[in-house]
Amino acid sequence: MDSKELHELLKGKMRTISNVDNIDKRSLSLLYTPGVAEVAKLCSENTENTYLYTRRWNTIAIVSDGSAVLGLGNIGPYGALPVMEGKALLFNLFGGLDAFPICIDTQDEDEIISLVKNLEPTFGGINLEDISAPRCFRISQKLNEIMNIPVFHDDQQGTAVVVTAGFLNAIKITGKEAKEIKVVINGIGAAGYNIAKFLMDFGIKNLVLVDKNGVLNKNYPESCLHEYHKELAEITNPENITGSLSDALIGADAFIGVSQGNILHEEMIKKMNEGPIIFALANPLPEVLPELAKSFGASIVATGRSDYPNQINNLIAFPGIMKGAVEKRTKITKNMLNSAILAISNSCVPTPERILPEAYDKRLHLNVYEAVKNAS
Amino acid sequence: MDSKELHELLKGKMRTISNVDNIDKRSLSLLYTPGVAEVAKLCSENTENTYLYTRRWNTIAIVSDGSAVLGLGNIGPYGALPVMEGKALLFNLFGGLDAFPICIDTQDEDEIISLVKNLEPTFGGINLEDISAPRCFRISQKLNEIMNIPVFHDDQQGTAVVVTAGFLNAIKITGKEAKEIKVVINGIGAAGYNIAKFLMDFGIKNLVLVDKNGVLNKNYPESCLHEYHKELAEITNPENITGSLSDALIGADAFIGVSQGNILHEEMIKKMNEGPIIFALANPLPEVLPELAKSFGASIVATGRSDYPNQINNLIAFPGIMKGAVEKRTKITKNMLNSAILAISNSCVPTPERILPEAYDKRLHLNVYEAVKNAS
Repeated sequence: MDSKELHELLKGKMRTISNVDNIDKRSLSLLYTPGVAEVAKLCSENTENTYLYTRRWNTIAIVSDGSAVLGLGNIGPYGALPVMEGKALLFNLFGGLDAFPICIDTQDEDEIISLVKNLEPTFGGINLEDISAPRCFRISQKLNEIMNIPVFHDDQQGTAVVVTAGFLNAIKITGKEAKEIKVVINGIGAAGYNIAKFLMDFGIKNLVLVDKNGVLNKNYPESCLHEYHKELAEITNPENITGSLSDALIGADAFIGVSQGNILHEEMIKKMNEGPIIFALANPLPEVLPELAKSFGASIVATGRSDYPNQINNLIAFPGIMKGAVEKRTKITKNMLNSAILAISNSCVPTPERILPEAYDKRLHLNVYEAVKNAS
Repeated sequence: MDSKELHELLKGKMRTISNVDNIDKRSLSLLYTPGVAEVAKLCSENTENTYLYTRRWNTIAIVSDGSAVLGLGNIGPYGALPVMEGKALLFNLFGGLDAFPICIDTQDEDEIISLVKNLEPTFGGINLEDISAPRCFRISQKLNEIMNIPVFHDDQQGTAVVVTAGFLNAIKITGKEAKEIKVVINGIGAAGYNIAKFLMDFGIKNLVLVDKNGVLNKNYPESCLHEYHKELAEITNPENITGSLSDALIGADAFIGVSQGNILHEEMIKKMNEGPIIFALANPLPEVLPELAKSFGASIVATGRSDYPNQINNLIAFPGIMKGAVEKRTKITKNMLNSAILAISNSCVPTPERILPEAYDKRLHLNVYEAVKNAS
């Protein structure tokens, strides 16, 4: 059976059902009118009561405008719907959450912000998904400011959490120190921006970012600089190097690619320090195939693909993070995400072929959930 | 157990679950990335494919801004949440629909219209609920114009369908002809407006509407006339009578109250024609208590209450109407609602103490669903 046939058979990966099997006059008078009036008043007087008397305590929205779906690009909200349903399925199966896909027919930033904000009474948390950069930065930042429930953007924070956890384990294996290594990130979108910030939190000092315009530095073309580039230009590239990806890689200990496939070649890897760490995360075609990277001297290779070892799979992080945050009923803090990173990296004894725990292990998700829930 | 305790035990009347019990690498690759990409493309190319490959085919939103919740008034969206969950439960148990409560934190008409319109890719139908009049008229009318899925406002259309079905059976019992009787409606809100329009569709010619400003006619205070009043002022009150409710009732064959309790007194009923039909639908306190109405000469009495015979209960209509409309995948037409009225009135052999079928009878909901689905 192929994907199309399986989707046709299921006619939906999620469904919404009642928590009671049957209803008669008596139970209806308690669950609906007139009995529900008492509960409605309690929820109106104190909005926290919705967590006691409705399913809001466990319900999240998977929100997408369909502007950057998987590798398909801007296919719109109807195209996004089966993908968001799939994401909801994973939040449900691994995080135990009531996850409901919300695909919206606007790509206007302000409309999206207003719409999601107005849905706050319905949900205990928001997961933003597959919204294109740099729009997603402003949308997620603004929603985090104005909403009182956790707002998570998996493409930013989730990816960065898993990459950072895997990366911490990779450098553990190589025996190097975070503060001494040079790391090059190719791609400054949703993932690249956040990975850079997280790696710096965990002690990486010499970080160089590159995209199609070359190395991010003070000479980076003004017309291409949005505010998030500017922020990174200030805090990265301490040696203020210039040029192309190839130039940036000279003397680097690690490469993290979150942009375009098949761009990391033999001569570039050979310019790096001995036994470099290569995270070739472009999907489905990585920046370099793992067998080639190894043959060119890489010590540890990770990709986004499930058919190679060391898959950087967001599924490792998002269910536990969201479940923990929804139970905490607070905004998502850096501290919560850093706790998730440590919970993930500590959930396995790393080897070069296994820098991350198994995504399907329910104990992993429990570890992440508890770490986030207990983070200060 | 009281309502509060039952709500606390359930912690939500609805829940969202997955349609698959477990997932492994192989099934994940079909249901999510990379397999879902093919299905996503199909849904993007033809939005109708979302009905084939996602749960949209059976999913509706129960949308409220909390501005007119039950008899509680404007208690806001948090107060509305347990009520909308209860409504979703009924749509699920009696209509088999995946019904999801959407409580929104704005009472601005344009924001509500824009928000609901933007949710179109997510849902196969919209049920508007407990939105105050006259705002609800414009919101439901506009959404009906701009959306391609059924938009139903139960407080308007659902109530009117059940009242009309019950009323047709009541006049059948009295042996009178629709075109010969005089009907007085007290209350010109969401329900009153729609009941008036439906009764006229079914042949009532002499219809008089009354509200706190008195009888609706050409002298009705201009400052109180919104456009829906104007429309009704044109087509009702053929004898152009003036005055109060008491004046309107002289020589009337039927009274339908959808406004304030305890306002229909002995001397008013005695001004009506012999054996009048009294629908005293104010809740929880009816316009007149059934035992009193009977003692004053009423032949048939209906209320909104479950502890008297002849409860006008929206539950009789809304699950079947919505299920039928969602399967038809069209806007809701007058013809569909008229078919629902006939299906309901024909689902019982009427007697003075039983003018409507039993709301808990699943065959009734099947009849309504089939009537709506097969309506031209």
